[in-house]
Amino acid sequence: MDEQLKKELENQSHHFRSLITEYCRFESVAAQKRMMPETAGWVERLLQQTGFETRQIEVAGAPNYVYGYLKGTGDYTLLLYNHYDVQPETPLELWNSPPFEVTERDGKLIARGICDNKAEFIARICAIRGLQSVHGRLPINIKWILEGEEEIGSLHFDALTRSHGDLLKADGTLWEGGGFNEKGQAALALGFRGMLYVEYNLQSVKQDAHSGNAHVLPSAAWRLVKALASLKDENGRVLIPGFYDRVRKPNESEVRAMRARVDPDMQEKYRAMYGIDSFLDGRQGYDFEAAVFDPTANIAGLLSGYTEEGVKTVLPAKAMAKMDFRLVPDQDPDDILEKLQAHLKAQGFADIQVTKLGGSEPVVTPIDGEFVQKMIRICRDFTGQEPEVNALVGGTLPLLGAMKHNVGTLGVSTSGNPSYYASGAHAPNEHIRVDDISRAIEFNMFLFSELGRD
Amino acid sequence: MDEQLKKELENQSHHFRSLITEYCRFESVAAQKRMMPETAGWVERLLQQTGFETRQIEVAGAPNYVYGYLKGTGDYTLLLYNHYDVQPETPLELWNSPPFEVTERDGKLIARGICDNKAEFIARICAIRGLQSVHGRLPINIKWILEGEEEIGSLHFDALTRSHGDLLKADGTLWEGGGFNEKGQAALALGFRGMLYVEYNLQSVKQDAHSGNAHVLPSAAWRLVKALASLKDENGRVLIPGFYDRVRKPNESEVRAMRARVDPDMQEKYRAMYGIDSFLDGRQGYDFEAAVFDPTANIAGLLSGYTEEGVKTVLPAKAMAKMDFRLVPDQDPDDILEKLQAHLKAQGFADIQVTKLGGSEPVVTPIDGEFVQKMIRICRDFTGQEPEVNALVGGTLPLLGAMKHNVGTLGVSTSGNPSYYASGAHAPNEHIRVDDISRAIEFNMFLFSELGRD
Repeated sequence: MDEQLKKELENQSHHFRSLITEYCRFESVAAQKRMMPETAGWVERLLQQTGFETRQIEVAGAPNYVYGYLKGTGDYTLLLYNHYDVQPETPLELWNSPPFEVTERDGKLIARGICDNKAEFIARICAIRGLQSVHGRLPINIKWILEGEEEIGSLHFDALTRSHGDLLKADGTLWEGGGFNEKGQAALALGFRGMLYVEYNLQSVKQDAHSGNAHVLPSAAWRLVKALASLKDENGRVLIPGFYDRVRKPNESEVRAMRARVDPDMQEKYRAMYGIDSFLDGRQGYDFEAAVFDPTANIAGLLSGYTEEGVKTVLPAKAMAKMDFRLVPDQDPDDILEKLQAHLKAQGFADIQVTKLGGSEPVVTPIDGEFVQKMIRICRDFTGQEPEVNALVGGTLPLLGAMKHNVGTLGVSTSGNPSYYASGAHAPNEHIRVDDISRAIEFNMFLFSELGRD
Repeated sequence: MDEQLKKELENQSHHFRSLITEYCRFESVAAQKRMMPETAGWVERLLQQTGFETRQIEVAGAPNYVYGYLKGTGDYTLLLYNHYDVQPETPLELWNSPPFEVTERDGKLIARGICDNKAEFIARICAIRGLQSVHGRLPINIKWILEGEEEIGSLHFDALTRSHGDLLKADGTLWEGGGFNEKGQAALALGFRGMLYVEYNLQSVKQDAHSGNAHVLPSAAWRLVKALASLKDENGRVLIPGFYDRVRKPNESEVRAMRARVDPDMQEKYRAMYGIDSFLDGRQGYDFEAAVFDPTANIAGLLSGYTEEGVKTVLPAKAMAKMDFRLVPDQDPDDILEKLQAHLKAQGFADIQVTKLGGSEPVVTPIDGEFVQKMIRICRDFTGQEPEVNALVGGTLPLLGAMKHNVGTLGVSTSGNPSYYASGAHAPNEHIRVDDISRAIEFNMFLFSELGRD
């Protein structure tokens, strides 16, 4: 890296701090539609100030999408994706500082949404500004799309890509997420699991009753508990008939990538972070890695009756649960929803209302394809070592299905985000490490330059 | 009833309205220890103003007990029991008026705690004042004990009766509760079920996690659901080994009383009130009545993860449930607690912390005994028809065990409370009917006079 770029990197790393502080102040909680227009406006202005032509795209029912285009000197067009929304900050009592005020402590910057994924947006902005400052124009064209409902399942991304597919076409796409691992390898993620998110609601009687009637009145809480319990056996295997029908096994290259990722130290750190002795079903080593190819059924929320301090002897009229199913190739969310409803009906729980709050299909970019191989080369050149290739990420990027079908661009996520394994996405005290900021910006600079080189 | 008493009854029924309004303004929620000293002070002053010698009794950890003594002209001493605490007002959104402001609508007075059991205290006060106004002194001595934690299980009533057993000794005791049924019969309740109230808490990982980790991290929500599901089979039978060991069948007189109580109209009203077609396990007729002799396991509260609007993809670190077991003769709460804990351990849920929040034994006053027979006679004389005798009430009066062991007085509850089957104790929009007020006061007047006659 030449001296001028090095100096500029230092400069941008400094700017990063004030920009991220400003950005995180926006309480852009998608689940509660908080401050969506304000946040979109701030993001658009930042793009404009970085030289982008911008527009906000309205799609009925969605917070506005922010779109930007930056013309470079070359022909290669890269699409960047980020989201400006964040997860709810609850449970508030577990935060050690105000969730929407970036707080520095022990070498960390702490705030809701900082790792997922406001810091990545700012790191990319800083990289572009750094390159512009030294070289004027970038060697590539950049398209940028930001949405405001990733954390609630990118509900309208399909509609966006149907109406604006051409606008989003590019030679390659970089999704959100990904840092460097603890060995200094760049991380590449080739695919994400799909998801079906549902809410269960039921009402057993017209009003809450005195629990002294429990021998004659049906309880919503009991029915919900029994219905949920019917979904899994003692070993965690999902009992919905046909649930595993379309699950495909990882192919040879994916197995090889997973074997290369096995890291006992990382698994040890994970255990320490969650305070557990062993993982679910005793998974470790390669089994820990490969378990990502197993679909899940997670209870995200559970509520019925009296939940405050002390005693209330009530028979609850209503009960609610939220559940996310993480789906693997080639499961389909609508197919799973149908099977779930059929199962509940067959078990005698037809009165439980199942509402689909989100659905996205699992999408994997082929590991042996040209785009992935090019990205592997760039990552190798930057770090001097093989990248860590993640064939399938445990989480979900809900827009991938829409992008695949309606735009057709292949994409990956890689190390442009100053996050690490313990950043605590979605959890209290979400954070990034100060020491990771400069490398993230430098990596983005390198990446944008290298993509223009071919 | 002579003219003077009749006039006085009208007078007292009028006073009742202002007194109950004042009383219900005290937000005396025991679960949250709200306004306990203020409420006790108001109650004590009202007793003083009615001629009682009073004192507040301190028991470590409990809201103060209020004790009053009124000397009459005869030898017979009656103990009255009431509680000045109420259930929490949640869920607030289901109330049609402010819970602590008595609101009149459609011939009803609506407020938290009005039926359970502030109106009964006021009705008894009004009856005593009415008799005093006409006759000067009452023919009986009255002892009165009021507590402030009935709704959380009368946790310190045992300690109170151990230290103040003699103070509470009387020839007969009237518990709280009970009105007239829809046929105009006075209701008598001879016993109450016992209760074990527990809270379950568990933590599966140190912090909430992104649910994309659900294939390797243990979930508190799932463990709790599975643990709860293990407590009951599909037919609602409790699966805790030994749970039914000490359950005794109702005796012949109790069966006869239950048969006399069977009322298809009442069961129809109950169905309408709760908006259901049939009761649990299709119970009806005598089976509906007799089911009260079955113990229950009720989920009173359930909480884990994200429960607000929309989507949050979180794997919950913690989960909580509250449960009340209604116990029948001769079950014992501590015995059931031990069996519950042993069951959870045997099922692999030793990590679930079980906290006992309340325990009370089932107590039944013998239906063929002298006190009950005397009360039956008084009820019959007042209404001109046989009373409705409830051998066992579905709810719980937690202090009965302590009274039985440490004081030894026999008691019943009867129609001194202007409540009816749909008063909605513990539920939103708890209320009494305006039309029932005068009869409740008159009944108490008659009762106090008749007890002095023998």
